[in-house]
Amino acid sequence: MKKICVGILGLGTVGSGVVNLLDEQRELIKRRLGVEICVSRVADRSVFTKNKTARGVAPENMGTDFEAVIDAPEVHVVAELIGGTDDARRHILRAIGKEKPVVTANKAVLAVHGEEIFAAAEKAGCPLGFEASVAGGIPIVRNLREAFAADKIERLAGILNGTCNYILSCMTEVGADFGETLKRAQELGYAEADPAFDIDGVDASHKIAILANLAYGTPVDVEEYHTEGIRHITSVDIDFARELGYRIKLIAMAGEKAGKLDIRVHPMMLPESHPLAQVGGVYNAVAVSGVNAGPQVFIGKGAGSEATASAVVGDIIEVARWLENGGDSRIPAAAFLPDQRARLDILAPREISTRFYVRFAALDKPGVLSRISGVFGEHDISLETVVQKGRADEDGYARLVLLTHKATEENMQNALEEISRLDVVQPAYALIRVESDGMAFM
Amino acid sequence: MKKICVGILGLGTVGSGVVNLLDEQRELIKRRLGVEICVSRVADRSVFTKNKTARGVAPENMGTDFEAVIDAPEVHVVAELIGGTDDARRHILRAIGKEKPVVTANKAVLAVHGEEIFAAAEKAGCPLGFEASVAGGIPIVRNLREAFAADKIERLAGILNGTCNYILSCMTEVGADFGETLKRAQELGYAEADPAFDIDGVDASHKIAILANLAYGTPVDVEEYHTEGIRHITSVDIDFARELGYRIKLIAMAGEKAGKLDIRVHPMMLPESHPLAQVGGVYNAVAVSGVNAGPQVFIGKGAGSEATASAVVGDIIEVARWLENGGDSRIPAAAFLPDQRARLDILAPREISTRFYVRFAALDKPGVLSRISGVFGEHDISLETVVQKGRADEDGYARLVLLTHKATEENMQNALEEISRLDVVQPAYALIRVESDGMAFM
Repeated sequence: MKKICVGILGLGTVGSGVVNLLDEQRELIKRRLGVEICVSRVADRSVFTKNKTARGVAPENMGTDFEAVIDAPEVHVVAELIGGTDDARRHILRAIGKEKPVVTANKAVLAVHGEEIFAAAEKAGCPLGFEASVAGGIPIVRNLREAFAADKIERLAGILNGTCNYILSCMTEVGADFGETLKRAQELGYAEADPAFDIDGVDASHKIAILANLAYGTPVDVEEYHTEGIRHITSVDIDFARELGYRIKLIAMAGEKAGKLDIRVHPMMLPESHPLAQVGGVYNAVAVSGVNAGPQVFIGKGAGSEATASAVVGDIIEVARWLENGGDSRIPAAAFLPDQRARLDILAPREISTRFYVRFAALDKPGVLSRISGVFGEHDISLETVVQKGRADEDGYARLVLLTHKATEENMQNALEEISRLDVVQPAYALIRVESDGMAFM
Repeated sequence: MKKICVGILGLGTVGSGVVNLLDEQRELIKRRLGVEICVSRVADRSVFTKNKTARGVAPENMGTDFEAVIDAPEVHVVAELIGGTDDARRHILRAIGKEKPVVTANKAVLAVHGEEIFAAAEKAGCPLGFEASVAGGIPIVRNLREAFAADKIERLAGILNGTCNYILSCMTEVGADFGETLKRAQELGYAEADPAFDIDGVDASHKIAILANLAYGTPVDVEEYHTEGIRHITSVDIDFARELGYRIKLIAMAGEKAGKLDIRVHPMMLPESHPLAQVGGVYNAVAVSGVNAGPQVFIGKGAGSEATASAVVGDIIEVARWLENGGDSRIPAAAFLPDQRARLDILAPREISTRFYVRFAALDKPGVLSRISGVFGEHDISLETVVQKGRADEDGYARLVLLTHKATEENMQNALEEISRLDVVQPAYALIRVESDGMAFM
């Protein structure tokens, strides 16, 4: 039986998971693939300082020299599992330069250097697998590339960051505030010591950039669209949301609208019957709506050594099939043929419409609501629900919650600027977008 | 640009959907695939009597001769969309005999003649696509074959029949009984005039046979396992289930247990927080639990012209890639290499354990519960919950509902036989299995 050898770059959580999985499922892989897959070389920065081992890999084949692994003649496939952007980019391009297929779990390098990497892979005729880069074990990359190949994708919306989903789920269930919940998540290992990358939405933003790229055949620049995290979500708003029948989730979404790309990452209130509203804890989920396939939802583990390793090994198996096959017409890495990709412009705030939840601290006296709703009206924003809750505080301010009908981002920002200058409200307000495109399809 | 030509057998709902989709998404397919796909020939039994047309197909290329379409030299791929078993089997084998790849949406022919068809396709080295045969637009076949290729699948559980799910959802929401809900479903076109195939679980049984085959690399004989439909589900039991925090769904499931296959189709009470419990209406869903990937759920449209056509065309695109490629080491149709498939025995009733819901009409007097629970105890069945509801009827019988802990099917059948002979209960009872393997992972 033929043997395909993998060179592993990075022996952290995911790298170790891949080594173990290839060893554990060796027989199963042979039964499905007819080829043996083994790990022949491993490079990791701290392989000696931390005395790392890899199951089934001889000590002399482990070291700190990444380039030696990439260049080793016996290595057929390179698995880039170090994360980060600069070194990862260099290693991936080096492997592609040697016409070695690459499998990566790294969303950051693809979100930032994706175009360069896709182009290099296409030029070299070299497969590039990155299923593990988005939503861990959920096969969303594969499905966008293959299952939806004949379908125009209307919208994608996902819970793509497990840390944020864990924090929001806990805040919803326990009623705790953001700070203490984050602390608990850090203690449990669900949030990094420096959590900014996750909780400010950057990680979800990288992931939706990759998915939008696949779905619409367009390069996507993460700097060009709105990315908002969950730091400002309070238990007060979570409670109001629940009273109104909603859950708050960090949603990364992309859709095509009149030849432009509607792409953004921000917290969103979803009706509690919405399939994404039900996804709790560290789970991830992606809802995809195809013109023909209709709406579909994929739910699964978004992180963790085993789920991510499972996606990496799935890609390695696909590469092994390609290596065995010797053909040259495989699925394009970026789903569309390179010369058929076309950059879509991103919608401007005046072109994006959604419903909004706004909470003010407003003076609890007659005429205040009429002044506020007057400003909204001037900006073409109509109100769906108004809730005044509880008694005024000692300064006379009470919580005023408004749900609007659909309005543009631009009109809302202008209205809020004007309202926050009124003498009847405090300048600070809470603003959360509300699901408004009928994704609630169950 | 190259052109791949499809011969369509059967121009019913799905066939027309495929013709339309290939026409509508011609440009998108070219952008993703680099190949043009067209329909060159169509055969349908009633093409003349019903004056059928197919978009983009010249009248002289439409007829009633299926074999002429299969044999036509310009047809590269055959799409079998006539349904049924005998004719479909013959057409599929004929196409494979001519080394033409086949795409089918037909679960019955695969559940009944799958082994013969898989073997013929492997022998001819000819791809066989059947994504559309299970769960319509949900790419579950693709994911079992590819995304889970490195993962041992612990269990599969699905809502695979939209008619049953529509009826059970309506009964739950409206409180109507089975008969009137079925009638409404028939009026709305969600159930056939002869609904037996759906509501007796046969359709779901065919589908789980196909999925188990892919997941475990084993031939599966639909005659060998328990298939139970939803005719006996009453609004009384749906109400009790709801009071206890459950929803009743028709679940088709398969899992491996000690080298044997646990496969069955029957109604099941799922905790209302279970992801499958939330799937309403005509939607389908499949939960797959991989040792490494963890639990995943796929939700989408299980039927309908467009969703099914979308899956058929996805397979046609995959075949087109293979035709373009010229390689020979594609993914095996049945997920495992032919010589690596091994028949698993199916678990006997004494080897299957689950929780049960049982409802009796029992005399409302002291000592009755103790006699009933005594019989259960003798058969090694312990009770979790006992609910007696409402007043006794004029004959003195009241509704007695019991939820058991896990017990074997065999013990339960024996206990029920004994209890139904007691003079304190009426002989008829309701029995529904209760989810008991911790699938509630959200």
